[in-house]
This record gives sequence, structure tokens and C-alpha cells, in this order.
Amino acid sequence: MTTTGKRWMMSAIGQPLLQHSFELTAPAAGEATVEIAGCGVCHTDLGYYYDGVRTNHALPLALGHEISGRVVAAGSGAESWLGRAVIIPAVIPCGQCDLCRRGKGTICPNQKMPGNDIQGGFATHITVPTQGLCVVDESRLKQAGLSLADVAVVADAVTTPYQAVIQAGVRPGNLVVVNGVGGVGGYCAQIATALGATVVAIDVDPTKLASIAAVRGAAKTINAREVEPREMKRVVGAFATERGLSSKEWIIFECSGTAAGQQTAFGLLVHGATLAVVGFTMDKVEIRLSNLMAFHARALGNWGCVPELYPAALDLVLDGRIQLRDFVEQHPLDSINQVFEDVHARRLSRRAVLIP
Amino acid sequence: MTTTGKRWMMSAIGQPLLQHSFELTAPAAGEATVEIAGCGVCHTDLGYYYDGVRTNHALPLALGHEISGRVVAAGSGAESWLGRAVIIPAVIPCGQCDLCRRGKGTICPNQKMPGNDIQGGFATHITVPTQGLCVVDESRLKQAGLSLADVAVVADAVTTPYQAVIQAGVRPGNLVVVNGVGGVGGYCAQIATALGATVVAIDVDPTKLASIAAVRGAAKTINAREVEPREMKRVVGAFATERGLSSKEWIIFECSGTAAGQQTAFGLLVHGATLAVVGFTMDKVEIRLSNLMAFHARALGNWGCVPELYPAALDLVLDGRIQLRDFVEQHPLDSINQVFEDVHARRLSRRAVLIP
Repeated sequence: MTTTGKRWMMSAIGQPLLQHSFELTAPAAGEATVEIAGCGVCHTDLGYYYDGVRTNHALPLALGHEISGRVVAAGSGAESWLGRAVIIPAVIPCGQCDLCRRGKGTICPNQKMPGNDIQGGFATHITVPTQGLCVVDESRLKQAGLSLADVAVVADAVTTPYQAVIQAGVRPGNLVVVNGVGGVGGYCAQIATALGATVVAIDVDPTKLASIAAVRGAAKTINAREVEPREMKRVVGAFATERGLSSKEWIIFECSGTAAGQQTAFGLLVHGATLAVVGFTMDKVEIRLSNLMAFHARALGNWGCVPELYPAALDLVLDGRIQLRDFVEQHPLDSINQVFEDVHARRLSRRAVLIP
Repeated sequence: MTTTGKRWMMSAIGQPLLQHSFELTAPAAGEATVEIAGCGVCHTDLGYYYDGVRTNHALPLALGHEISGRVVAAGSGAESWLGRAVIIPAVIPCGQCDLCRRGKGTICPNQKMPGNDIQGGFATHITVPTQGLCVVDESRLKQAGLSLADVAVVADAVTTPYQAVIQAGVRPGNLVVVNGVGGVGGYCAQIATALGATVVAIDVDPTKLASIAAVRGAAKTINAREVEPREMKRVVGAFATERGLSSKEWIIFECSGTAAGQQTAFGLLVHGATLAVVGFTMDKVEIRLSNLMAFHARALGNWGCVPELYPAALDLVLDGRIQLRDFVEQHPLDSINQVFEDVHARRLSRRAVLIP
């Protein structure tokens, strides 16, 4: 194992990220050092970098929380992890507290998020607790035609909507609406389809709608620019009728993370509906909250994904039920400043994964 | 049995309610005619009468959906109900459809609400399906010092928050906040306390706060006029710390049915919180919906209560774990126009029950 790692550090909002070297010390008990295969660029990273959302760890800090790689050093009690290909959860709960024991690791007060609470994944190496690491079966990975770097995005873009879909209780025969089929929403649509739901995908970008239709992740696509917001419910309802699906109990995933998208999603409430709030925006929206009462509906927030659900989400990828390849593109980690700019300017239509 | 009944009919918004006579025909198969003991006046009735909220049944219509009474005639197959003291559910699901069979009677498409879908309870008699009727044990009623008319309010004011409390999963040791402790919220606080939660009651009316404290329905009361909205979370948090309760997973019941109250309630979200939307207002509110995501919280709407839960809610009343007496006052049905005016002008501090 080399004794020096490299990280690309954020020192201030919008200032160029700079490469730093750091010493690779031996991991502590229960921890492992992972040689990073790839780290995905998420809009959360851009929020820290461009919008001044504060990281919990003081700057300078390496961002990045969608990480895959191989364990190259292990602390006491973690020796069995040595050499394994792994995905690091975007949010690593402590696994010990009362909340973790009740399956509520996403609100664990001791949780660590790389690139927020601890040094992140835009680096050659990262040291993390082994708690929650997800093993990647490399023979299945190869059969699926994927590289270890490709599955970095499982750590957030795939597992976050996976947990939202599980939490919402999606079942075969459900009508699911996914609003916003970009980085996270596209996988949300694919996951809901894989679990037997009939999916309506809504977006303002016809390219994204075409991509999700091409991998059979949606049974119907709607360009939100072509339908009046107040007509959207009628259009979805007509599709439900056409397919013999219920006019009640729709499950709506808001993945656009925009105020306009949240308005659209809230406007789709029907009796017994579930609205899953997956995307994030600082913007407020003006809504009739009482509609939740009048429709006996519910709105479920979702933060990350507990490590317990990672293996099942990864299975869908390795079984080919979720297509990753068309939604991911690799770039050298050295080009991080250019890639951040390109993602921010929405010049990339696929998720960027940075390769050290 | 008499052959003629009387109803107080609404013919147009705000026009005096007028007494009409109607013929008591024999109930159809599976139906029963109930001689009404009392019918509570709910804000939903005022919404129809003053605010122009439309009833599903065309006018003229007798309003009223909080009904208790005695079965005086029964159709074929319903004979066993004859003579029984009963509470009529405010929302009567069909009991037969797929939704009803899955315990989702509140969104049953064939549900009937007296005073909305069918002739209501401001009358001497009403004919309803026996599906969902809740039997009242008259010896326990007497022991509790209550009359059959008193428990009319179980049909909405008690059971609606009861279902909301069950749906939210309130358990011993929970910190529960009830915002608005009037007709519905007061019972909500009492129910949550009865189930072992520690309840913080918030209202703008010191009389209501004193009443709920007097029956030990709340461990702490907060006058919302004396605390800045942005300070409210800190004040509740300090109380949680004082009692050794968690700073996460608060369960917040919004029962004020006002935009200001919904803002307050939404502002109390903490990690893993549940916000139960029990009160109704047509007004919209401006909120950061994404906070549900950031806190991994949820908002649960609640419409009425399925009949299956009525016996357990009534048990709490008959066991004295919910105090009704101090929150109910009886008035003659003949004074309905005056009582509507008094309730509308908020001149009554207790729930009015009209007695034929």
C-alpha cells in the first residue's frame, strides 16, 4: 500500500478545488481505508460548492459521497474486509444507537457523511467505519458489463430512491408517478418499474424522458412544458383509466428538487395518495396542506438510505433490472473543476463519476 | 314507532334552517332507523352553512354527522340491532369494496356521510346502513355519568383524532405536540396522554389551555400568542430536555385548521418527526416542503375514522380516560339557528349537542 493519498479540497465557495497530499495512516479499530475506484458528482456537492450550503466539517474539505473502491487497509476487528470491493454508504450511521437498532439509521445522530462530516470521495483514498459497507460481487459485476467505478452511483443516486420506493410501499399494480427523471428520478422510475409498478415519468427535458423510456423505466412520459399544471392530474388519470389502474392511492415521487416540481407533485394528490419528497430545494412552496387531510393522503420525506437496503438495491443493478450504463459517464478526477462547471451548467446529461 | 319524523333543513347558504316533517318508511334490507338522542355541531357543518362548501347531496338537506341514538326500526337482516343504543360513524364506508377490506374505509368511494351524502342528524330520526354502527353499553355509560346524547361527539370529535393518533403510532414515552386544543384537538391531547405520551398543548386561547390542563390532558401548555413562532421549537425542545424526552421523532398534531397553526406545526419538524394534519382550512400555506426530506419526517393526513376503531375510542370515554363532560353542552334542537350563530361567533367554549 502506498503511504500518500491525494484529495481535491474545497477551501471556499466557488474557489478552484486544489489537490492536496495526505499521509495514509493505519486505520483505527473497526475502520478501513478504501482505495477509491470512482466517486459520483451529486447536486448536493454543487450545493456546498456554489450555493454556500454549509458542510458539517470545517473547510478545507474534500467533497464527494458516492464512492466505490477496494479495501486496502483494515483496522483491528475489520481484517475480513481486506481486498474486498465495496460501496461506501453516502450516510454511514453508527449502527449502535437506539435509532439504528430500530432501523432508523438515516436519523442517527452520530451518522457520518463523506464530503460533509468527514473527508470525502474526490480523492485517491478514504478511511471510513466498516459499519454499513456494501460488498460488491465482482464476478456478477463483470457479467453485468460494469466496472467498480460505475457502481459508485449506487451510494446515493440509486439507493436514495430505492429507500423512498420501499418506504412508500410500492407494489405490483400500483400507479407510480416520478416527477423529474434526472440523476435520482431516473433510477426511481426504473426501481418502481422493476418492483412491478406502472410508471408515469414527468420532466421538462425531452432527452431525459426519451432516455428513461428507452430503458423501459416508464410506461408513459409527459413533458411538463406541454401540459398545464392544472391539467396534469386529468392526464395522469386518463392514463390510469386506459390501463385499468386505480384512480386512488397513486404514489408520487418528487425528484426534481424544484419548487415548480413540488407544486406539480402536490397537485397530483388523490385519495389515499403517497407523495414521496426525494428531491431537495431551499425554496418554499405555497400549497393547501389540508389536501393531505381531505384526501387522507401522506407525504413522506426521505433522507439517504440505510445501509441495510444497499445489497437489495445493488442486486437490481447486477441483475440488469436497473440500467446504469446509459446514465453514467467517467471523467478523470484531475478534471474535477471542469466537471463541476459542466454539471452546474447542466451540460452533462449523464451522472459524472470521477476516476482517481 | 311514530310514523312522522322532523328535520331541520338547510335550503341555501346562510338562510334560516327550517323544520320539515317527513314520513318514516320501513328501512330497507341492512338498514336501520335510529331515533336520535343527540347530534353534535361541528365546524364542518358551519363550512357548508356559512362558507358555501358544497354538500354532495343536493339542498335542501339536514346537516349533522355526530349522531347517537337508539335503533327503533330495522330492515331485513338487521333485526338484531332493534332497541340498541348506538353511535353512527360520521363517515360510513360500504364495508364491501377492496379498499374497505384493506382497512381503508375512509377513502371508500361508496362512503356515506350523514348531512353530506345523505340526510343528517339535525332531526328526530335518521335511516342508515347498519354497517359500522357502534354499540353503546348503557350500563357503562351510566356508570361514567354520561347520557347517550353526550357520546354523540364520539362520532367525529373523538374518533377523528383517535384514528390520527393510531395512524401516527403514538406510544408511551413519545413527545406529542397538539396545536389547537378546541373541539377536536382537546380530545387529541387527552387520547395521546391516555396512550402514554407526554403532551404539549398549544393554543391562542388561555381558557382552552386551562381546560385541557384541568383534565390532565397535557403536561405543558403554551400560549401561541406569547411565544414567537421561530422560538416555538426551542421552547418545546427545552421541555423535552427537562423531561428527559427525545429531541427527535416528535409527533405533532395540527388540529387548529388555520394557516397560522399549520405554519407553527410545520415549523416544529425535527428529525424523524410525524406531522398529523387533522384540522382543515381552505387557505394555502407557504412552507419549505423539502424539510420533510431533510428531517426524514412525514406528514399524514387523516379523514374521519374507520368504524373498526370506534369501539376502542368509546372505551376510553367509558373508562373515564377521556373526559367528555366538561367539553360538551346540550341545547334543544329547536334552537339550532341560534346555536349555529353562537358557534360561528365562537361564543360557546364547549361542543354543542342538539337534542330533539
